[in-house]
Amino acid sequence: MKALVYYGSGKISWEDKPLPKIEHPADVIVQISKTTLCGTDLAILRGGVPDVQPGRTIGHEATGYVTEIGPAVQDLKVSDHVIIPCNTSCGRCEPCRKGLHSSCERGGWLLGHTIDGVQAEYARVPLADSSLFRIPDGVDEEAALMLADILPTGLEVGVKRAEVGLGDALVVIGAGPVGLATILAAEFYSPARIIAIDLDDNRLAKAREIGATDTINNKDGKAREKVMTLTEGRGADAVIEVIGNPATFQLAQEILATGGRMANIGIFHKSTELHNETLWTRNITLRMGVVDNSTVPVLLKMVQAGRLDPSSLVSHHFHINEILEAYEIFKNAAQEQAIKIVLSTDAAKKAGSNKVSNDNEFIRQIVERVLASL
Amino acid sequence: MKALVYYGSGKISWEDKPLPKIEHPADVIVQISKTTLCGTDLAILRGGVPDVQPGRTIGHEATGYVTEIGPAVQDLKVSDHVIIPCNTSCGRCEPCRKGLHSSCERGGWLLGHTIDGVQAEYARVPLADSSLFRIPDGVDEEAALMLADILPTGLEVGVKRAEVGLGDALVVIGAGPVGLATILAAEFYSPARIIAIDLDDNRLAKAREIGATDTINNKDGKAREKVMTLTEGRGADAVIEVIGNPATFQLAQEILATGGRMANIGIFHKSTELHNETLWTRNITLRMGVVDNSTVPVLLKMVQAGRLDPSSLVSHHFHINEILEAYEIFKNAAQEQAIKIVLSTDAAKKAGSNKVSNDNEFIRQIVERVLASL
Amino acid sequence: MKALVYYGSGKISWEDKPLPKIEHPADVIVQISKTTLCGTDLAILRGGVPDVQPGRTIGHEATGYVTEIGPAVQDLKVSDHVIIPCNTSCGRCEPCRKGLHSSCERGGWLLGHTIDGVQAEYARVPLADSSLFRIPDGVDEEAALMLADILPTGLEVGVKRAEVGLGDALVVIGAGPVGLATILAAEFYSPARIIAIDLDDNRLAKAREIGATDTINNKDGKAREKVMTLTEGRGADAVIEVIGNPATFQLAQEILATGGRMANIGIFHKSTELHNETLWTRNITLRMGVVDNSTVPVLLKMVQAGRLDPSSLVSHHFHINEILEAYEIFKNAAQEQAIKIVLSTDAAKKAGSNKVSNDNEFIRQIVERVLASL
Amino acid sequence: MKALVYYGSGKISWEDKPLPKIEHPADVIVQISKTTLCGTDLAILRGGVPDVQPGRTIGHEATGYVTEIGPAVQDLKVSDHVIIPCNTSCGRCEPCRKGLHSSCERGGWLLGHTIDGVQAEYARVPLADSSLFRIPDGVDEEAALMLADILPTGLEVGVKRAEVGLGDALVVIGAGPVGLATILAAEFYSPARIIAIDLDDNRLAKAREIGATDTINNKDGKAREKVMTLTEGRGADAVIEVIGNPATFQLAQEILATGGRMANIGIFHKSTELHNETLWTRNITLRMGVVDNSTVPVLLKMVQAGRLDPSSLVSHHFHINEILEAYEIFKNAAQEQAIKIVLSTDAAKKAGSNKVSNDNEFIRQIVERVLASL
Repeated sequence: MKALVYYGSGKISWEDKPLPKIEHPADVIVQISKTTLCGTDLAILRGGVPDVQPGRTIGHEATGYVTEIGPAVQDLKVSDHVIIPCNTSCGRCEPCRKGLHSSCERGGWLLGHTIDGVQAEYARVPLADSSLFRIPDGVDEEAALMLADILPTGLEVGVKRAEVGLGDALVVIGAGPVGLATILAAEFYSPARIIAIDLDDNRLAKAREIGATDTINNKDGKAREKVMTLTEGRGADAVIEVIGNPATFQLAQEILATGGRMANIGIFHKSTELHNETLWTRNITLRMGVVDNSTVPVLLKMVQAGRLDPSSLVSHHFHINEILEAYEIFKNAAQEQAIKIVLSTDAAKKAGSNKVSNDNEFIRQIVERVLASL
Repeated sequence: MKALVYYGSGKISWEDKPLPKIEHPADVIVQISKTTLCGTDLAILRGGVPDVQPGRTIGHEATGYVTEIGPAVQDLKVSDHVIIPCNTSCGRCEPCRKGLHSSCERGGWLLGHTIDGVQAEYARVPLADSSLFRIPDGVDEEAALMLADILPTGLEVGVKRAEVGLGDALVVIGAGPVGLATILAAEFYSPARIIAIDLDDNRLAKAREIGATDTINNKDGKAREKVMTLTEGRGADAVIEVIGNPATFQLAQEILATGGRMANIGIFHKSTELHNETLWTRNITLRMGVVDNSTVPVLLKMVQAGRLDPSSLVSHHFHINEILEAYEIFKNAAQEQAIKIVLSTDAAKKAGSNKVSNDNEFIRQIVERVLASL
Repeated sequence: MKALVYYGSGKISWEDKPLPKIEHPADVIVQISKTTLCGTDLAILRGGVPDVQPGRTIGHEATGYVTEIGPAVQDLKVSDHVIIPCNTSCGRCEPCRKGLHSSCERGGWLLGHTIDGVQAEYARVPLADSSLFRIPDGVDEEAALMLADILPTGLEVGVKRAEVGLGDALVVIGAGPVGLATILAAEFYSPARIIAIDLDDNRLAKAREIGATDTINNKDGKAREKVMTLTEGRGADAVIEVIGNPATFQLAQEILATGGRMANIGIFHKSTELHNETLWTRNITLRMGVVDNSTVPVLLKMVQAGRLDPSSLVSHHFHINEILEAYEIFKNAAQEQAIKIVLSTDAAKKAGSNKVSNDNEFIRQIVERVLASL
Repeated sequence: MKALVYYGSGKISWEDKPLPKIEHPADVIVQISKTTLCGTDLAILRGGVPDVQPGRTIGHEATGYVTEIGPAVQDLKVSDHVIIPCNTSCGRCEPCRKGLHSSCERGGWLLGHTIDGVQAEYARVPLADSSLFRIPDGVDEEAALMLADILPTGLEVGVKRAEVGLGDALVVIGAGPVGLATILAAEFYSPARIIAIDLDDNRLAKAREIGATDTINNKDGKAREKVMTLTEGRGADAVIEVIGNPATFQLAQEILATGGRMANIGIFHKSTELHNETLWTRNITLRMGVVDNSTVPVLLKMVQAGRLDPSSLVSHHFHINEILEAYEIFKNAAQEQAIKIVLSTDAAKKAGSNKVSNDNEFIRQIVERVLASL
């Protein structure tokens, strides 16, 4: 099969690789149908995620068809059409029982990080029963693909952790793919205002298109004053920082109202300055975290009900064989007006016709494996 | 009357001052019965709270007897025995309606800050109906005095904001008066462990006496390792920082478990370093704020039920005329083994017998005032 | 002035009555601008609310202009344009401090119940500072009038108590004025489905128009089966009963999903049957209550932001002098396709030009009253 | 092996039965060490639980040692010392993902109900990885046994659903085993008063011994008046009904304060009367449900920390061979002053020394089974 392999800072290659195999009883093999690029993939490409070793297939958002199941898999069966979310989890360990699936003792962010990922024709997915989500009939596969990472991230790490509520003034700092997904998710909770801040007018236009009530281009550095004016001097009830930059984190602190909640989605590479000395009299809450994908089922319900259309987040389409070209565009996302780029394999067309095994064959394989191990 | 007056950095005086008068229709005048010293008073004395102008009577925790009521006062009457809490609030403005009484648009921390305070024989208290709490019969006045600030602070700013819950490992950094009050309040929520950290063995002994399950003297700088050992490597579910120091804030971040909540009671004078770069994968929550005194009624219920004994926080007793001596002791609190110092006026003995006015007189005064204003 | 006076079962009269006076220091007098009829008024008219004594002016939803303020009133001033909500509250008693304003020890449902109400040209409103809401500039007065009772009722007693949440299947039983207001309020919380049940096709058409995704006319008694089909056999995550009838309460219980929450807005006149024997294995929650009007500020924000248009609930307009005709139409609401009927006084046109007193006069009156009482 | 077999109303027998076998890949076999009798077992014995068919081994609370694991079991291993809770659950279905483990689509109350139970020397437990809880070293096995049902029931169905909180007046109606467990669990949340109501003085004495602040013997039918006196006329903030009787349910409604929460643990066999007509003005919440056992881990932590001693709930000890005698005593629990009766097998002494299989044998068996099925 073909896979996108990382070979150290700046080096990726679309090349042949052996088909993945079941390695653990709870694994499944999925034939990838659609996958997409994430800002984190660019960070890996820049060498910014040292845990990713050269030789690793990257990518952690995909949809596809189950082609093989491990002996402990009980819910999934061959040919199931599924979302592969960025994080996998066992559902039984202490963090999982507390709902912190991203901190799963057996899972977490594995795909395209510490094990081979999904920018490939096939992928092995661990902890499959408790990690994959079946795509219901009638749900568009591209919409489903947007539920693998950015929409649950916007909802869980942004909107829920910032406790966005009825009538709130919400500020979202950063209107890239995750910022836009955050705005879509925020609308579910009916803030009175959604103020998007960015430095790129195209992204801000997109933000308005999908639901921002106000946008601020902070090229002039006056975002603080403008937010204060829009909120009659009170500041924002909720701020979601999606950049991960000391300057935007500073801005977030300055615009937070009394009783305000801030959620950090943006990833920082070193410590930042926190203004406890002024924030304490404002009774603030600050939260940060990683997506648990626990909202994928409810997001699927909203897509099915016609109340969420994540396809507005897709800007470009490519065949998976054109993935290197897609990376070039994604690296210049602002200029290229790129949000999410969807990459499709041939499986996306054949839609489940090319399964590599069937149940009988599978049982025979397992039995042989078990006999061999005695 | 006598009052403790601040005259700039390092200078306080116990001296004669005119009796306070009703200035606003919602004011009352209270004859102080008992008052106490707060770490914030020491900060004022060091010149660290610039809003406090020379000539100001300081002090913001007291009990006493209502001697005069303004014309808009409806619930309180002359001779009511009350707690004067550190913050006053109107109960009707937007922050108050959201429960953020400390951010009241008309009140907040006024007493001993921007208006004359309660380390005096009499004090004017604004927004009286919505700020004062009647002391129920049978509640010891010293216990009630502990409810003016430190116990609600420990409960509201510490325990509730850190979401201390059943079975949690809780760390309280700082075992001075507020830290000890925090430990008392934390026990209401049944954490499995309460680990107190301080540099003073006497305070840690007191912490154990009132409920800490474990104590760590961090003179050797090994608190982090010790907390990790006590929590089997998981860290603390809840951390309450009561010092307001960059080093203890750093420690708090290091010992926070996955899913952990940190509350800052300690007051910082400049920005501190926040480790977003490591905390985000631990799904943490950080809160800071100011006491709303909204829990005074429930704390009074617990005292009445015999389920809370805040008198364990009182280390010294003085007559109010000895207040300068009390300050000397409080400045050396650790050496003196001082926690809370109770100062009593003569009213504490006479218990309500020496009211300066009665209702009829009062009405006559008000009428005269109203007539004069036409 | 003119007022609508109740004289026992079936008897109301639009007649002259003396102008109301300040009776308590926290009272204000409001010149009514707009008022509306409530189902509860019909219940009074039928003799179904025995606390309402003959001679009582009824009505408990209005907007108007403050014309006189009591001596303890601090926030409101003459000529303020306000919403008079159905319940008044002091904001300071134990229930109020817990947010249960409808159970206020000094207030609750007084207007048009135990004191004269607002279907009149003037009304006395107790506990004014903590009960009235100023109408911001630019908010349509009819929209504001809808915030006096039905929208907060739908939101607080229905939507919040049923914990309507993202992706939920919600059933609203009853599509009269309050049911429709409930549907409007429910949309703020993004359920996937809003299923309205009624016996009247016009009301169901209106329900669809304002946001119901599905409607069921239960004339054939098959609502249960239809809800089960629409929810794929799971039942409703949230059910809001707005009728107050044993049959609809029974239906509500039958369609509640595992983990479901039911809120009762409908008022019952005797006990009903609760199926604990089957509901317990479904882990259900049942709540009932009275509107606190605590959400009026946030609803005003949503109107201001253009995100709530309650004018869709208004079906008819009359001058207040035509109030008896309005009652005839409201009694036959289904046939007349009546939802909310707005009654306007001349003040609605003159908008605040006809104040009956000024501050100086008022102060003189109060002084005379005080002197007389000595 | 020996097992307690139900043969229809009034008939049980302690008799030989074949050893249970792995039937599903997620099953384990557990050698029972300790088990106990539940009120539900008496209901079965009276023929009151029709789903229990003659021939069924009953019992649903036990501790023991894993002796065999199914091929999909990943976390447990042979010889693990475990709590078998009353409900089993998969952790992955829609109800489980919502935390409603008792409504698990694959599990729920199976043991001693629709499959053979644990009043036996061995038992098959389905969904083992997600249902069993390892007993940490140093935890007393009898304490662990109390965590199989009654303590999580008291905590989850009673205390949490009634939202027992700091300073509350709590009433627990029924001071049998589950009522007493509820009182123990309630203390974690620091109510100001815990008022226990029963008809048996011994049980009420026990209630006082373990934490009730007040007890009422309702033989004179004056419980309502006494609760009102104890709560100064306000009623109870939280009421937990543990009987399942129309009269106690009526009492629960009568004593509920404004804003009160009622939780029903008692099981009803037919519908009861609900007083919506009076409760609605009191803003009440009523919840009912089934234990999810989700709190077993935190209860184990509290036992380990020495902050929970459930052994106070154990009144009698028997060898499992004396189980019929134990049933006689439990049938007359009040007279016999019986709370929980612990039954121990020989495994309790030998502590894990008598495993019936080993891993190699097991793999061989599974392979044979798979081969046979092809």
